Amino acid sequence: MNVDGKNIRPIWFNEEKEMVQVIDQRQLPHKFVIEDLTDLKKTIYAIQDMFVRGAPLIGATGAWGVYVIIKNLKEKSENNEILINDCEELKNSRPTAVNLTWAVEKVLKAILKKETFIERLETAKQEAIIITEFEANNCSLIGDFGVELIDEISKKKNAETVNILTHCNAGWLACVEWGTATAPMYKAFDKGIDIHVWVDETRPLNQGARLTAWELSKHGIKNSVITDNAGGHLMQHGLVDIVIVGTDRTTYTGDVANKIGTYLKALAAKDNNIPFYVALPSSTFDWEKRDGIKEIPIELRDPDEIKYVTGKHDGKIKSVLITPEDSNAGNYAFDVTPARLVTGFITERGICNANEDAVLKLFPEHKY
Amino acid sequence: MNVDGKNIRPIWFNEEKEMVQVIDQRQLPHKFVIEDLTDLKKTIYAIQDMFVRGAPLIGATGAWGVYVIIKNLKEKSENNEILINDCEELKNSRPTAVNLTWAVEKVLKAILKKETFIERLETAKQEAIIITEFEANNCSLIGDFGVELIDEISKKKNAETVNILTHCNAGWLACVEWGTATAPMYKAFDKGIDIHVWVDETRPLNQGARLTAWELSKHGIKNSVITDNAGGHLMQHGLVDIVIVGTDRTTYTGDVANKIGTYLKALAAKDNNIPFYVALPSSTFDWEKRDGIKEIPIELRDPDEIKYVTGKHDGKIKSVLITPEDSNAGNYAFDVTPARLVTGFITERGICNANEDAVLKLFPEHKY
Repeated sequence: MNVDGKNIRPIWFNEEKEMVQVIDQRQLPHKFVIEDLTDLKKTIYAIQDMFVRGAPLIGATGAWGVYVIIKNLKEKSENNEILINDCEELKNSRPTAVNLTWAVEKVLKAILKKETFIERLETAKQEAIIITEFEANNCSLIGDFGVELIDEISKKKNAETVNILTHCNAGWLACVEWGTATAPMYKAFDKGIDIHVWVDETRPLNQGARLTAWELSKHGIKNSVITDNAGGHLMQHGLVDIVIVGTDRTTYTGDVANKIGTYLKALAAKDNNIPFYVALPSSTFDWEKRDGIKEIPIELRDPDEIKYVTGKHDGKIKSVLITPEDSNAGNYAFDVTPARLVTGFITERGICNANEDAVLKLFPEHKY
Repeated sequence: MNVDGKNIRPIWFNEEKEMVQVIDQRQLPHKFVIEDLTDLKKTIYAIQDMFVRGAPLIGATGAWGVYVIIKNLKEKSENNEILINDCEELKNSRPTAVNLTWAVEKVLKAILKKETFIERLETAKQEAIIITEFEANNCSLIGDFGVELIDEISKKKNAETVNILTHCNAGWLACVEWGTATAPMYKAFDKGIDIHVWVDETRPLNQGARLTAWELSKHGIKNSVITDNAGGHLMQHGLVDIVIVGTDRTTYTGDVANKIGTYLKALAAKDNNIPFYVALPSSTFDWEKRDGIKEIPIELRDPDEIKYVTGKHDGKIKSVLITPEDSNAGNYAFDVTPARLVTGFITERGICNANEDAVLKLFPEHKY
């Protein structure tokens, strides 16, 4: 999307330098730093240390990572054992990221059909482009379907500003292009619909305040950062027309695992009759689990993520301790919003209700 | 309450130094700094710059402030014009604080009946003590009634840990002694009931992470700081037995204005059948307003409170910017939880349901 008038993605291939490049998202919004993925070690570091984050982007980085591996192995890349070992190492850099494994394996499989270094390098590049464009295209389709919801509200309000609330960052920074939750917002903006976005700061890691606010502003979309506490009050007072969030995993029965705090916003939306939509590519559906609250494991992360807050002071990025030194902190990373609170899903195939029948009607290939 | 084994209040009279002293709460939890209220200017600064905060404590500080005025005026304190002017200045240091005006006027009225400096100084001291003890005693009574709720849960759980969730700081730091929401917790701890408190950090100003976590820990009560996003997840998973919060203003019909985010916790408690109690001295009831959501004005504060987070870095207190430099932020300070979500009120006269009939039955002097 637009960054200071230039079209930018979080990962791209620099043809001139013949180099895969990424934005170092750890430094946003304070510094815009581009990093070259020079070798496997650097690529793994970028994934582990969260230069890149978000399932689709991690997948794309994995695909481009195979290109980086081959380029560095040069003629040795024809040695399948070394190549496969390197790919294994890349896959293990974030073992829970399903997209990473999927993308690395897809590219590797295509490469193993080729023999020479040159063929393999070119195949890796083409496959990485295919995966990257596939993710971008899915998000674009999500945007095309989702913008209809915003357009409808805008018409009902006689073109007055449509206020959208979102949580965390399900934006292009996590998804190559468009984003999931943000895709309908970008499409609405590009169509000239007047929108304003309430951005939950999303403690503890402030992905909303750091990333969503940054990417929306850079594209020119009006937005205001709010504390995670504020959404209920805004909804009570008619200041939110629709909630759109992303998801890390959604059961085919409609339960939505997403960044901690999503459930509270869904409750407030329900209490105030405000539509609550979840935007997701179908790869995010879990076709096995039926009960999200009971069956989806919730990651308990480092308490220091709560105790320390990172930001800019005197031009430098610093962390400040906000609790007593020896405080305990319980850092639950995700929560599950039950299907009954979800108005609908916005997918690359269209919009459906949040229940098994509706989801399987849209994705019949997953019917047993 | 206890701080490292010593009994401490947020304001007290140091008999040896003949000096009113307060804790500078701005520096908690990182530094424990005691300040002398040497003169009117210093007292006003302590109120305005939030060395002291919370309605009951601001009231007590106002009462002691009159003592400070007389002491500094010495023989000139017999000049009623100067005395009254000084008291006016003190009252105006935080014009919206109802308790401040009430306390200053109560002490002043008693003084004006006396004539000499010595009599007036002694009267101011006695009146300030009366007001301070009145607040402390109300909180103690709230604790006595509230602890019954915790005791009952403890018995049902066969003395397993009772998990209590609270929002913001409605502790002794805001209330002279015991606190409001925390009073039942301190009484439970002192009775040997096994409790653990989930402390919402309470963005933007982190009164939970900074103050509640500090005072509970200093007294020896087990607690964990959580993000404001986490409470819903904890309730879904049986990790919260009861919610107890304070309030800034509550209509006699049962609507509760409290720190922003309280409403979201009340929704989650309702959704999970968890009791949600509000602890308050009856002075916090608004006997005029019927519809809290429509009638209670919500303060919109400085966006920088959201954009910057304050904490300790390298031993110094610093603020870091967490959003893009030019971000908008909407800083709504309070929200209103409708009566239908409130299980009950814990007051100095007992516990009642959150509705007009029940409240007026407990406080019949406010019936029309």
